[in-house]
Formats: sequence, structure tokens, C-alpha cells
Amino acid sequence: MEFSSKLLENAVNEMSQLPGIGKRTALRLVLHLLKQPNEQVSFLAESLLKMREEIKFCKSCHNISDVEVCEICRNESRNHAIVCVVEDVRDVMAIENTGQFRGIYHVLGGKISPIDGVGPSQLNITSLVEKVKLGGVEEVIFALSSTMEGDTTNFYIYKQIKETGVATSSIARGISVGDELEYADEVTLGRSIVNRIPFENSFKNN
Amino acid sequence: MEFSSKLLENAVNEMSQLPGIGKRTALRLVLHLLKQPNEQVSFLAESLLKMREEIKFCKSCHNISDVEVCEICRNESRNHAIVCVVEDVRDVMAIENTGQFRGIYHVLGGKISPIDGVGPSQLNITSLVEKVKLGGVEEVIFALSSTMEGDTTNFYIYKQIKETGVATSSIARGISVGDELEYADEVTLGRSIVNRIPFENSFKNN
Repeated sequence: MEFSSKLLENAVNEMSQLPGIGKRTALRLVLHLLKQPNEQVSFLAESLLKMREEIKFCKSCHNISDVEVCEICRNESRNHAIVCVVEDVRDVMAIENTGQFRGIYHVLGGKISPIDGVGPSQLNITSLVEKVKLGGVEEVIFALSSTMEGDTTNFYIYKQIKETGVATSSIARGISVGDELEYADEVTLGRSIVNRIPFENSFKNN
Repeated sequence: MEFSSKLLENAVNEMSQLPGIGKRTALRLVLHLLKQPNEQVSFLAESLLKMREEIKFCKSCHNISDVEVCEICRNESRNHAIVCVVEDVRDVMAIENTGQFRGIYHVLGGKISPIDGVGPSQLNITSLVEKVKLGGVEEVIFALSSTMEGDTTNFYIYKQIKETGVATSSIARGISVGDELEYADEVTLGRSIVNRIPFENSFKNN
């Protein structure tokens, strides 16, 4: 791609560093910004800079936060004895949106994935194990995605905390609400039969 | 979507103003930036700001440029008597990439589209008509997209310049090179038969 302007080229190159944004999309976005008032571009640029410089990660759960300890960890009305282990900040938001969980979280920041060069030391695992060993935690819920990496990570953590005798659980896998059985994959359908639940429980949380 | 951080929320909101970027994608992009070194975020922010503030549009053809008159319009070896009218900067890049055009361009900045509130006065039409009336232009090539808005714009310009007696042409519409006839739409196939070309011309520009 040949650009008539160096400034345009730089902006497109930087924009195309973002995941899922190729050169053509980057060009479209940048040309859109060119048509916008100056302020909109400054707002975007400043909000990104400010976020990158000032954002904090909660000391306790590693969730993104504007302060040292995040709102969820500071909330006394939540059950601090139940810790839900998730991969990333988006998972916290997704679970919070359901309104069904009143415990606290622990954000790992990823999954163990040798192929991507991510080992246990790059993740927030030590702090989780320490938290559990310190006592006060009654249950650890594993809510990682159900992939090989997710399962490996779950098991790695499980091995380190099982001696403390803390209860561990995994979020339920099964057919999505509203989905047709015939289109479900075999593994999911199989698991949903093996891990069937008492009928009375199936209409509790609505 | 509830955010655990105001800084994060602001960044996501600004990012999701971009066309085709929803809240979820914006969150993904912003979380990616959070994992990058500070410099990458500054580079992105600065290149956008610098571009928005310093970029110029060529006085003659309205193409994006770092200087008053763009490289194409300054190039003496190009044929300034042939003006190719295009919608936007991307079209200039696309045509330049083919290496088949040695004339100059005129970037309208859009198409006449009453439904989007775009009238002739918002486009760079007056300067084109003036350029043609001033003399020195021998041919005007219309290379707008073949939509109702494109055709309207072509015709609007055509009406204003036809009295000068300048030659006008339209880029050829037809079956794409490598495409199968049976999958072509009727209008395109029909036009490609009506506007058939001498066989010797069909293998000239490769």
C-alpha cells in the first residue's frame, strides 16, 4: 500500500498493530478520524494515554481498577470466602452481568499455554495459592474457558491447593439455555447428561 | 456493560466511536493495548494527533498530502490534461496501485447523497468545474462507484462541464478478470456485452 502522506502512513501503521485490524481496516478508521472534529481525535488519544499510564490492577484480585483495591474486593457485603478464578477482566464483567455471583474474583491474566510462551510464572497463580493457604477461603470456583489450556491451568492450580482441603468446583458445562439438542456437540451433550442436576434446581436461578 | 474502572470505560467509549467497532471489540482492543508497552500506546496516540493536526489536502486535487500540492500534482512527467474523478483517497491509492494511469486525480470527498445529507456544495465539485473551464484539461474520467449516488454525481458534474466540449469517459464495467460468467449479475454481464471491446484491446494492459 502506497500512501500519499507520511503522517497518514504512520497513523495507519500504528492502528494496524491492533489485533484483528488489518491495513485496509486501519486506513478506513484513520480516514474516518480525519473527517471528525479535532476534539474527537484528542479525546480518543488522551483516553488511551491516560488509561495506559494511570490504570491500576487490584492488589488482591488483579482486576482492573482505578484504585489500589477494586470495588468488588472492598465490598463487605460480598462473600470473601468464595473465590471465582477467571482468565481475564472480561470474564469478571460477564459474570457480574449475570448478577448470580456474590463472592470475589481472582483474575489470572491468561492461561498456561506453552505454545504461546505463557508459563505459570507469568500468571497471577502464586498470589491465589497464597490467598488460599492463608485461610479464610472456603471454595475456589474454576471458571476458565473449557480448552486444553484452560483445563491445564485449572489442574495446575488444583494440585497446589488441594492439600489445604479447600472445596473446589468448576462452572457447569452443558447445553446453552434456548439451544436445540440436535445441534449441540457430542462432548457438551455427553457432559450435560453425566452431570445432570435435580429437576427442581433447573428452574431456580431465573 | 459495567466497567470496574472509569479510565477503562472512557477508553472503550472513545474507541467504540470508530465505524464498525462495537463495545465488545473496543474492549478487546483496549485490553490488548493495556498489555503492550507504554511506548506503543503513545506512538498510536501521537500518530493520530499529529495526523489530525498537521495533515493537508492538496490544493489542486484534494488528495491527502503532507505539503500544499501533492506529489502526483507536482509530478511533471504525468499527463495533467487527463483528470480522473474519484470519491476518496482510497480510490486514488487503488488506481495508483494498478500502475495503469499516468494522468492526475480529482478527489470529490464523497458522492451526492441526499439521504445522508450530502449535497454538491459539500463536495469538491466547484474546483473541478473551474479547473475544466480554465482549459488545459482534455479528458475527464469518471471513476466513482457504480451506485445510484455515484451515477447522480457523475451526471451532475457532466452537465456542468459538457458545454466546455471536454471529452468525458467512464471506467469500464464488466466481468472481473478471473470471474466465471455464470455467477456474474445480469446488469454487469449485460453491460459487458453492450460495451464489448475490440479483441486486440483485451490483452493489451497486462
